[in-house]
Amino acid sequence: MASLRGIQQPELSKKLYKLIKSENHAIGAYESAGRERIGIASQLSDWGEATGDETVSDVSDKIGVLLSELGEQEDHFATNLEDYRTVLKTIRNMESSVQPSRDQRQRTMDEIAKLKHKEPENTKIATLEQQLVREEAQNLVAEAQLTNVTRQKLKEAYDIHFAAVIERAEKQIILASHGRRLLQLLDDTPVVPGDSRPTSFEHAAQARQILNDAEEDLREWTSNIEPINYQSQGMGSNLMPSEGAGGSITTAPATISADAIEPDQTRDRIDTSAEGSHLAKATSVEEEVQQQQQQEQEQPVAA
Amino acid sequence: MASLRGIQQPELSKKLYKLIKSENHAIGAYESAGRERIGIASQLSDWGEATGDETVSDVSDKIGVLLSELGEQEDHFATNLEDYRTVLKTIRNMESSVQPSRDQRQRTMDEIAKLKHKEPENTKIATLEQQLVREEAQNLVAEAQLTNVTRQKLKEAYDIHFAAVIERAEKQIILASHGRRLLQLLDDTPVVPGDSRPTSFEHAAQARQILNDAEEDLREWTSNIEPINYQSQGMGSNLMPSEGAGGSITTAPATISADAIEPDQTRDRIDTSAEGSHLAKATSVEEEVQQQQQQEQEQPVAA
Repeated sequence: MASLRGIQQPELSKKLYKLIKSENHAIGAYESAGRERIGIASQLSDWGEATGDETVSDVSDKIGVLLSELGEQEDHFATNLEDYRTVLKTIRNMESSVQPSRDQRQRTMDEIAKLKHKEPENTKIATLEQQLVREEAQNLVAEAQLTNVTRQKLKEAYDIHFAAVIERAEKQIILASHGRRLLQLLDDTPVVPGDSRPTSFEHAAQARQILNDAEEDLREWTSNIEPINYQSQGMGSNLMPSEGAGGSITTAPATISADAIEPDQTRDRIDTSAEGSHLAKATSVEEEVQQQQQQEQEQPVAA
Repeated sequence: MASLRGIQQPELSKKLYKLIKSENHAIGAYESAGRERIGIASQLSDWGEATGDETVSDVSDKIGVLLSELGEQEDHFATNLEDYRTVLKTIRNMESSVQPSRDQRQRTMDEIAKLKHKEPENTKIATLEQQLVREEAQNLVAEAQLTNVTRQKLKEAYDIHFAAVIERAEKQIILASHGRRLLQLLDDTPVVPGDSRPTSFEHAAQARQILNDAEEDLREWTSNIEPINYQSQGMGSNLMPSEGAGGSITTAPATISADAIEPDQTRDRIDTSAEGSHLAKATSVEEEVQQQQQQEQEQPVAA
């Protein structure tokens, strides 16, 4: 056993505690997959260069650029899963904060039952019964908060999760489809011994265009998913209905605090990931080389 | 350093050797991600049941089924990457088998140069020069085989890789989209303390239908990708053009062997993975329960 922390969790939040831990491993696996893919991309480019075959070199370098972007998408997916995991933690925290309220109520009930059996005339019974009324009121609030948070956050968590799956999938389809276009440019007609391949890659311009197309398609990608409808928009900071529901109890101060509980409907986070950067780098380098070549043609160097 | 094997690789195949090793790590990461996802799916289902909220229980159980399928897709993706990795090994094996031919030729050339410098009258020079002619012929064949295999197998490897990316993406979009439909059924209207949620899940039939739809869509999925054109179809088992190319050299026996070198254009492998099985299991269990409920309604148990 590597840690005692799981054991210290209240009974109520143990299951989610473990799930959140497993999710951390899953996220780690995607981060690792992304890192490996980016590494393989540059290994492929290096290998292609070492073959001395200009066509293989150019094609494998450009496949490498697309593989790097595929890897960045895995990493971006892991970042989105981290967001989903954070939302699950809100439920787990609520669960662990509700546990003491349940326990206290149970303890008082047990004590009353014991006293009634052993010393039915003890005046402490009346005091305990008054205490129980207060504890039951507190527990009712806690249980309402728990079910409200559970449903809202479960919905929000998998809203994020499924949206992330779709985003990665759509972007990777763009990248892989352009990758297949690149492969079509690689002429694998076999040669006989002594025959040499053309020294330059005849489809170099088309290959460059494919990377440009991939970059543009990725930049223009937008999410087309239908938004999830939340009925919890009227939920106040006390985690109960805040409008039109009436009843003084809805305005009771929340006895149980929970951070950042507002449904985060408009998830317009600023994307700081590296996605698209490999393509942007690759296409801008290509442009520089092209410009240089053009300049050289325009102003031939005097030998 | 955990192993000396990389060092023992001939110079020519070192880069690809390392790339293939990295790919093994990437595949491992996807296998791990798939395993974790399937584990999380059943943790989520268990958690939902423990909440005692029939709606949360049903929705989280069905999200769990979809998550399991998402996990199976990661695993299936890893299997496809393993196929791509096997194709890369063909290039690597060819590289390591060509190295001795290059080395031998170089050694003979060096020896001739040394002798010509030190003992220009030595009769061994003529013998070595005859040997060099033979070695050069052998090397020409080896180099032709290398370029033929490299181009064909590079194309085939990334054909498989990109097709696998697209397959996983398309199938995961199906699963995640149905997952989002499920979330729409989860009513997260907040309740006030003392209010109880409906004891049964009002959209249970719709939720069941969503899993059926997902199962059907997944079963009906077919690949729509445009096939890659191979020009190497005429390549013979000697790894050189086998038809219409003429020249006696094309019929020379292959001095370098390579296993399973035929382009594997029609990749109709039998799918032994578990994909779809979670949905099939879930929907058949649901049907049983439904039938049971129907029977119970038809034949009310005498109290």
